[in-house]
Amino acid sequence: MSAYASLYKDELLDNILPFWLNNSRDEVNGGYFTCLDREGRVFDTDKFMWLQGRGVWCFSTMYDKVSPDPQWLAMALHGAAFMEKYGRDKDGNWYFSHTADGKPLVQPYNIFSDCFATMAFAALDKVSPNERYRKIALDTFENILRRQHDWKGKYNKAFPGTRPLRNFSLPMILCNLSLELEHLLGPARVDEFIPTVIREVMEVFYQQDTGLIMENVAPDGTFSDSFEGRLVNPGHAIEAMWFMMDLGKRINDDTLIRTSTDRMIRMLEYGWDPEHGGIFYFRDIKNHPPQQLEWDQKLWWVHVETLVALAKGYAYTGDERCANWFHLVHAYTWEHFRDDQFGEWYGYLNRKGEVLLNLKGGKWKGCFHVPRALFQVWRTLETLSI
Amino acid sequence: MSAYASLYKDELLDNILPFWLNNSRDEVNGGYFTCLDREGRVFDTDKFMWLQGRGVWCFSTMYDKVSPDPQWLAMALHGAAFMEKYGRDKDGNWYFSHTADGKPLVQPYNIFSDCFATMAFAALDKVSPNERYRKIALDTFENILRRQHDWKGKYNKAFPGTRPLRNFSLPMILCNLSLELEHLLGPARVDEFIPTVIREVMEVFYQQDTGLIMENVAPDGTFSDSFEGRLVNPGHAIEAMWFMMDLGKRINDDTLIRTSTDRMIRMLEYGWDPEHGGIFYFRDIKNHPPQQLEWDQKLWWVHVETLVALAKGYAYTGDERCANWFHLVHAYTWEHFRDDQFGEWYGYLNRKGEVLLNLKGGKWKGCFHVPRALFQVWRTLETLSI
Repeated sequence: MSAYASLYKDELLDNILPFWLNNSRDEVNGGYFTCLDREGRVFDTDKFMWLQGRGVWCFSTMYDKVSPDPQWLAMALHGAAFMEKYGRDKDGNWYFSHTADGKPLVQPYNIFSDCFATMAFAALDKVSPNERYRKIALDTFENILRRQHDWKGKYNKAFPGTRPLRNFSLPMILCNLSLELEHLLGPARVDEFIPTVIREVMEVFYQQDTGLIMENVAPDGTFSDSFEGRLVNPGHAIEAMWFMMDLGKRINDDTLIRTSTDRMIRMLEYGWDPEHGGIFYFRDIKNHPPQQLEWDQKLWWVHVETLVALAKGYAYTGDERCANWFHLVHAYTWEHFRDDQFGEWYGYLNRKGEVLLNLKGGKWKGCFHVPRALFQVWRTLETLSI
Repeated sequence: MSAYASLYKDELLDNILPFWLNNSRDEVNGGYFTCLDREGRVFDTDKFMWLQGRGVWCFSTMYDKVSPDPQWLAMALHGAAFMEKYGRDKDGNWYFSHTADGKPLVQPYNIFSDCFATMAFAALDKVSPNERYRKIALDTFENILRRQHDWKGKYNKAFPGTRPLRNFSLPMILCNLSLELEHLLGPARVDEFIPTVIREVMEVFYQQDTGLIMENVAPDGTFSDSFEGRLVNPGHAIEAMWFMMDLGKRINDDTLIRTSTDRMIRMLEYGWDPEHGGIFYFRDIKNHPPQQLEWDQKLWWVHVETLVALAKGYAYTGDERCANWFHLVHAYTWEHFRDDQFGEWYGYLNRKGEVLLNLKGGKWKGCFHVPRALFQVWRTLETLSI
């Protein structure tokens, strides 16, 4: 397993980061273009706050944890300046998207813009400490906590009370976010968060009878026999399991690490396509037709997050199932997603593993999952050879 | 071409209508189940107002135009009773969906629920005249007109003013709706609508340089170089062209009929998949990656609406291109969508024409496009042999 480390390191440093440095900077208006075609050319100039924040986080974190390369810091500052100038409405909520020159296009209907803005400014503050960055990160974090139970606000289309559901996304991100913010919040505040977050992810959304983690459950954690309630998103749950392993490391909880590893393997077995390989995007737990027409597609983030989870599961527990699966998922992922010719990785394949959209970045894919995963796998597997 | 008529008639009467009569009635709460699996079994009990309204319209129209079969009228009344009892909020807006027993699940965020409710009660009033039905149809129609320029209301996520766009869907439906309501509105009021509706469909959304009809344009009808603005939905435009042909018939405008036929052929040539056959769901006019991950899928409604447009184009103009295309689209559609074993038609195929979801009905597919198209093709081609 340790032999993979240098491959992941080289891919990160020689392919992925240069691709974004070379292609995504908007030199006129600041910020990043993320809609990049196969060759890295900008095909749409809209800017999406999720991806601006994720880019700032990525380059700040590389500067912090890989090496203090001045062009990485400059890239992070470049994105942050755009975000700071145009990103928020008067109440401090982050818009979803903007025109190239920073005019808001889509309202702050989506709290994950705020989550990634928090991550961005917290990470930037580590490498370029600044009261303004700290304040943006903390104010946004408090705003997320204030909005967390009704974050859709007026955009919520659910009729109140008929079928209340809890969704897995926010608890899962808060778990990652509190660790990212530890230098600002202080360990005591983070310690307060941890038990709740672990409980949400490991108990509320986990279903004992199937051993699976659901995307939506009734308020008491029971199964909801509805389109939303039957939905399984294997990649999402697998990603959450490596967040849990990291939390387990932080609080020295071996049981948590082992349980997360077991559940990650279970989700992967469940999500794997036995016919064509790769991990399904969505499944219906009762094998009914899911709502999502893209259910059988193979997405980049699902596969790279799985590689992280398998690497950590192996490094932290020595479970051989993780190594066996890693070899298989690695082979599938590098063969199907990586573009040998023009750099970076494809995002969207059809069920058979053929390229469905040949973009390298878009409305939802930016400089985030691929570099974060390459970094995590590299650093995790590197420890094995020591 | 006229030889197809009896095939379409038999399919409608012997396969499609019995399938819905046998499987979709909720005998306990009224209304229709539409989430039906391959064999016609209910896999989800939620009820969607679009599909309740479309079912009422369908059975009323069959009773009106095919034969006064009492079970069809009973079926229409069965759906209408559920809609009347549970369908609207206190302001007369139609909810999007309900639980099986009529509790609202999703708010009236979507004006097309109102459009299909109007169609439903207008059609029902023709076969079972009733002051209440007439009032529901007319009140809802006036409500649609009142809301038409800001129908998303508080659910609209666009930031005001940055990139205003006009969407093709509502003008297109209003065109069909005004004809469906003629017995209630009177010919004079319908005559008032017609020029505006024709202008919208044939001028505003039509792009001279490409000969294509767009889904979204700037307020002045010019091209918007954005994900929304680059979007082409061939099936949607083709469906609109047969509405235009019908309008052309009504106002004796042969030029309109010929132009609609030409544009329909152009959209079909553009939308056809040269590699695997079938019509793409979405394309980006600049050949950039579209936002919609389902862009390359083959959907039932796209294909059956195309058959209607081709049949009408042929019958009204004698254009041989329509006949040639009809043979091809007919062969593809009947081979790939029709289920020989359990009746009715599949809705969703992948690009290669393999079944993607084996449902016969769901959140968006009910008793509507297939029976309406079979009826329209049957009646249109039947006239050729006279």
